[in-house]
Amino acid sequence: MKINREKLMEAAKRQMPSSRWEHTLRVMETAAELARRTGADPEKADIAAILHDYCKFWPEDKQREWILRHRLPQDLLQYNKELWHAPVGAEAVREELGIDDEEVLNAIRSHTTGRPGMSLLEKVIFLADYIEPGRSFSGVEEVRRLAREDLDRAILKALDNTIVYLVERGFKVYPLTILTRNDFLDKIPQTLPKEESH
Amino acid sequence: MKINREKLMEAAKRQMPSSRWEHTLRVMETAAELARRTGADPEKADIAAILHDYCKFWPEDKQREWILRHRLPQDLLQYNKELWHAPVGAEAVREELGIDDEEVLNAIRSHTTGRPGMSLLEKVIFLADYIEPGRSFSGVEEVRRLAREDLDRAILKALDNTIVYLVERGFKVYPLTILTRNDFLDKIPQTLPKEESH
Repeated sequence: MKINREKLMEAAKRQMPSSRWEHTLRVMETAAELARRTGADPEKADIAAILHDYCKFWPEDKQREWILRHRLPQDLLQYNKELWHAPVGAEAVREELGIDDEEVLNAIRSHTTGRPGMSLLEKVIFLADYIEPGRSFSGVEEVRRLAREDLDRAILKALDNTIVYLVERGFKVYPLTILTRNDFLDKIPQTLPKEESH
Repeated sequence: MKINREKLMEAAKRQMPSSRWEHTLRVMETAAELARRTGADPEKADIAAILHDYCKFWPEDKQREWILRHRLPQDLLQYNKELWHAPVGAEAVREELGIDDEEVLNAIRSHTTGRPGMSLLEKVIFLADYIEPGRSFSGVEEVRRLAREDLDRAILKALDNTIVYLVERGFKVYPLTILTRNDFLDKIPQTLPKEESH
């Protein structure tokens, strides 16, 4: 995939304002670092990072049309459009750029909500997007710290933060976000609460 | 249904410790008050309140068996058993006590998680269980206050409280709880946030 990297970067850059392209560059760096540390495929992490926000700035109508035409989960249409660009982006880079690596496509597809059974590459892209150094929202420092120790716990914390943020502000929560969090809770060894460990 | 009321009370009382029966009596009172104020059917509210915790203290194995045998949603088995007694209870009072009023059965079935499209009777039982005067958990006062004005907003707040409680303590959230909350968010007229109302 190395040969096309510059072309992919050009193609992605053209889809978004420069501030978002700066974000993409930081996600690429963070993903490279996470891949190095965890053994994820560095080339796939690089390509997925370059393309993860490919259609984030497409007009709402165009994204809606892709959801309908590509038979993506139709319940997306009842939720915030910020959720659309991940699944739409996977279809878009397949169709417009010829990306056919399913691992890369899955990493793009699941980078906002995660999904039960995430691969290492998916975890790397999800987290790189959440913790890249330009992010400053509440709780991001703890997720950065956890990401140095355990990707699963870091993603769980990121999902916790997102869910509480949405609930406290009166926004809907996409059910897949809940299923992803439940999946991590099932997998991560739990420490018994003190009062139950006697 | 009046004729059998005393028998139903006896049958329900036998299924649970006396402290839980005291809770049931308070739910009956609260449900009667809510029904009076909102125009819900008082007799159905009474019967549903009497029976809402019918099998809450059944052994875990017995409840699991009912979930399997009656083809209740099988994903329940992957979630906290506190969620089981509502759907199992509806089947149990149908089979053991001959309750065949679908509105009453729905109110029992949905009293823990709610569900999208709740009826007035379901809302009354859900809220009576949450706000009965013996409840003292964090946030219950605000839900009591809201329940005097608007059942939908009161249930939304109760669901918000439950979700944040579970997330902050590292417990799984049952997806139906999220779907119920999203349904109320879709129905309740929203006040625009100030920064978006210009």
